[in-house]
Amino acid sequence: MKISKKYRMPCVVYSGATSLEGQFSGVRVDSGSICLDMSRMNQILEIHEADSDLVCQPGACWTDINDTLSDKGIPLFFPLDPAPTATIGGMLSTGCSGTNAVRYGTGKAEWFLNATVVLPSGEVIKTRRRARKSSAGFDTTKLFIGAEGTLGIVTEVTIRLTPVLPTTVAMVHFPDVGKAAEAVREALLAGVGIQCAELMDDIAMATINKYGQAGGDWPEKDTLIFKFQGPNNESLQESGRIVKKIVTKHGGFGFKFAKDDKEAEDLWDTRKNALYAGLASVPGSRSWSTDVCVPVSKLPELVYETKKDLQSSGLKGFIGGHVGDGNFHSLLLIKTEEDLEIAKKLVAKMVHKAIALDGTYTGEHGVGIGKKEYLVEELGEGTVELMKTVKKAIDPLGLLNPGKLYPDEVVAKTKD
Amino acid sequence: MKISKKYRMPCVVYSGATSLEGQFSGVRVDSGSICLDMSRMNQILEIHEADSDLVCQPGACWTDINDTLSDKGIPLFFPLDPAPTATIGGMLSTGCSGTNAVRYGTGKAEWFLNATVVLPSGEVIKTRRRARKSSAGFDTTKLFIGAEGTLGIVTEVTIRLTPVLPTTVAMVHFPDVGKAAEAVREALLAGVGIQCAELMDDIAMATINKYGQAGGDWPEKDTLIFKFQGPNNESLQESGRIVKKIVTKHGGFGFKFAKDDKEAEDLWDTRKNALYAGLASVPGSRSWSTDVCVPVSKLPELVYETKKDLQSSGLKGFIGGHVGDGNFHSLLLIKTEEDLEIAKKLVAKMVHKAIALDGTYTGEHGVGIGKKEYLVEELGEGTVELMKTVKKAIDPLGLLNPGKLYPDEVVAKTKD
Repeated sequence: MKISKKYRMPCVVYSGATSLEGQFSGVRVDSGSICLDMSRMNQILEIHEADSDLVCQPGACWTDINDTLSDKGIPLFFPLDPAPTATIGGMLSTGCSGTNAVRYGTGKAEWFLNATVVLPSGEVIKTRRRARKSSAGFDTTKLFIGAEGTLGIVTEVTIRLTPVLPTTVAMVHFPDVGKAAEAVREALLAGVGIQCAELMDDIAMATINKYGQAGGDWPEKDTLIFKFQGPNNESLQESGRIVKKIVTKHGGFGFKFAKDDKEAEDLWDTRKNALYAGLASVPGSRSWSTDVCVPVSKLPELVYETKKDLQSSGLKGFIGGHVGDGNFHSLLLIKTEEDLEIAKKLVAKMVHKAIALDGTYTGEHGVGIGKKEYLVEELGEGTVELMKTVKKAIDPLGLLNPGKLYPDEVVAKTKD
Repeated sequence: MKISKKYRMPCVVYSGATSLEGQFSGVRVDSGSICLDMSRMNQILEIHEADSDLVCQPGACWTDINDTLSDKGIPLFFPLDPAPTATIGGMLSTGCSGTNAVRYGTGKAEWFLNATVVLPSGEVIKTRRRARKSSAGFDTTKLFIGAEGTLGIVTEVTIRLTPVLPTTVAMVHFPDVGKAAEAVREALLAGVGIQCAELMDDIAMATINKYGQAGGDWPEKDTLIFKFQGPNNESLQESGRIVKKIVTKHGGFGFKFAKDDKEAEDLWDTRKNALYAGLASVPGSRSWSTDVCVPVSKLPELVYETKKDLQSSGLKGFIGGHVGDGNFHSLLLIKTEEDLEIAKKLVAKMVHKAIALDGTYTGEHGVGIGKKEYLVEELGEGTVELMKTVKKAIDPLGLLNPGKLYPDEVVAKTKD
């Protein structure tokens, strides 16, 4: 950071390389720029089992952390679950989430207890201590969560862990996504242990049937996959009974409750295979996965419109999402430059519609380069100005990850 | 805010008046200061039942909000539970929590979805939209959570709600607080629905027996009160059975599981009566309630030492707390100036010890005037400088609530 400051050379922090909006791509300025690769700062430094927390370096991968805990027989895990190779530093910087958010919340809640951060001034700070709660002023940890490496370089993080519980999986199909969303809403009200509530639309199911790794014979209907959690098998069975009753009331059919762990895993893999099935359905294609999030009651409207737009665009793709939170992704399959142009228009339409429904154009993927043009539309000029005021106060030379996140941000100043 | 700016007259926002560290007391400057009373901006503006959220004004009281929802037959509630007359604006500004935090987290998690804020510049912004999740940059809502009215005036808030579930209560006694803390930790690992896990020490129990509103014949031992939650009565019974087994293993005895709602309420009231029993035990006394929070494994050590210090001080008082989060309060009973001096020393000792144990000197009460001298000790110079940098960037004239939170903050500048 001191070198960056001395030579007025921008610095871009890199680690897991799983972000989807160009957050860690290089900066084109005459001075050149530094890419700071944190991926080998990947150690777990301290495990505090009795406190349910853990201290690690920013390059540590969340799946490795969870595997390590499991190998050591520690019945705890870190519940934020973005891409399997994402690392803690990037997860913090994106304010990430994933399928578990409906139960555990997102990276913007209290999973990152504190961070050690190198500020653009070169000063090293620790944002907070290790207690689970604190009211000692506004939480400076939160400044760096979602800031995409524009305010500081995260070098160490304390993450909170949560108990590993028995889980199982169920799948159920619906005549349409509106019914599915309503069923999830009511299931969440019942207070049973729901760890995940994932949607796959009819096209996704058809694609999985045809091209999925194991294939399948699923009804080609809008489908929910629930992951239940509870203290023991009896409570999982009871949750299944309660949720089956609710989903059936909303037109759900073919409710399949995994009979053992193997079947639970297979059902869950159906969802995981959707991306690969999609890519296989259009040989030679790349995928564009975009995400929006709206108040849950608005989700069906946005899904209907997006499906209609997708169909009339001629592009292949489908919709899946974390429906319990109103968050969904649209997977667009692209082969040509022409496809890319169509996809851009589709994404822009989704974005505008999500914002019009009091939602966000990014539920969990972040802003980066890909979506910074929409920030003002979502938050308003005043709020974006406030973000820029904070950015300028902390990084007056614009050294950290310039050109990302903030619209119209002045790129790093050249050496005076 | 424009008047405040024009006349360089500081502005202190006031509402529920329940904060405990002088957050809303006036400012002594030659220019005088404005007290902005928000307590009659107390309306619920929109209830979005299908989205589990609600828009209200900052003077709305959380208990009124929950009563309104209940009266309307809406099975949702707002789970942050500080003092019963606390209001949403103050709760946001304190980053508050309460007994439910062990299940629902604190005000620094995701319960405040967005806020409309008047900035010191006079500009009005809305920090975020109404979706439950967003990765659109760092979350400016979080800047105002815990800022104690020093960065902006909150005029409207969207809060997230959560389902009302069946609950019941159980009480159990322990030979010492270490065993109690260990029992809570293991109970939380079991994955049963625990909404609250509250500690009252042996002195608290003796005080309640002697002076409590209903009196009592409780064992005068370190005691836990659990509130369980679940989808139905069977699951509550099952949680009770699982937790009884765990607490018994850790030396817990006299496990009393409420046989009906009335008994559950009575057991819970035992805890609520502690303050009044304390005050009655020293006629004419006032109470000083202070709070600290440490990693949960460190809690017994801090409680032991605090009890020892309290005993040798000659002051009457006891300890209670949200033991599942490592957060506890010490209630000190004060009659004379001499008592006050003793109490100050006791609190200082607790604070230093909590910080030395990697904890915080304020788990939920905030900083205000009472604790700002400790901020640097807890967070370090660099982190406090960062907070001041943000403060200066947003409120360059130091108009909002000067003299609170930040140590050595320059009081509002006089008119140029």
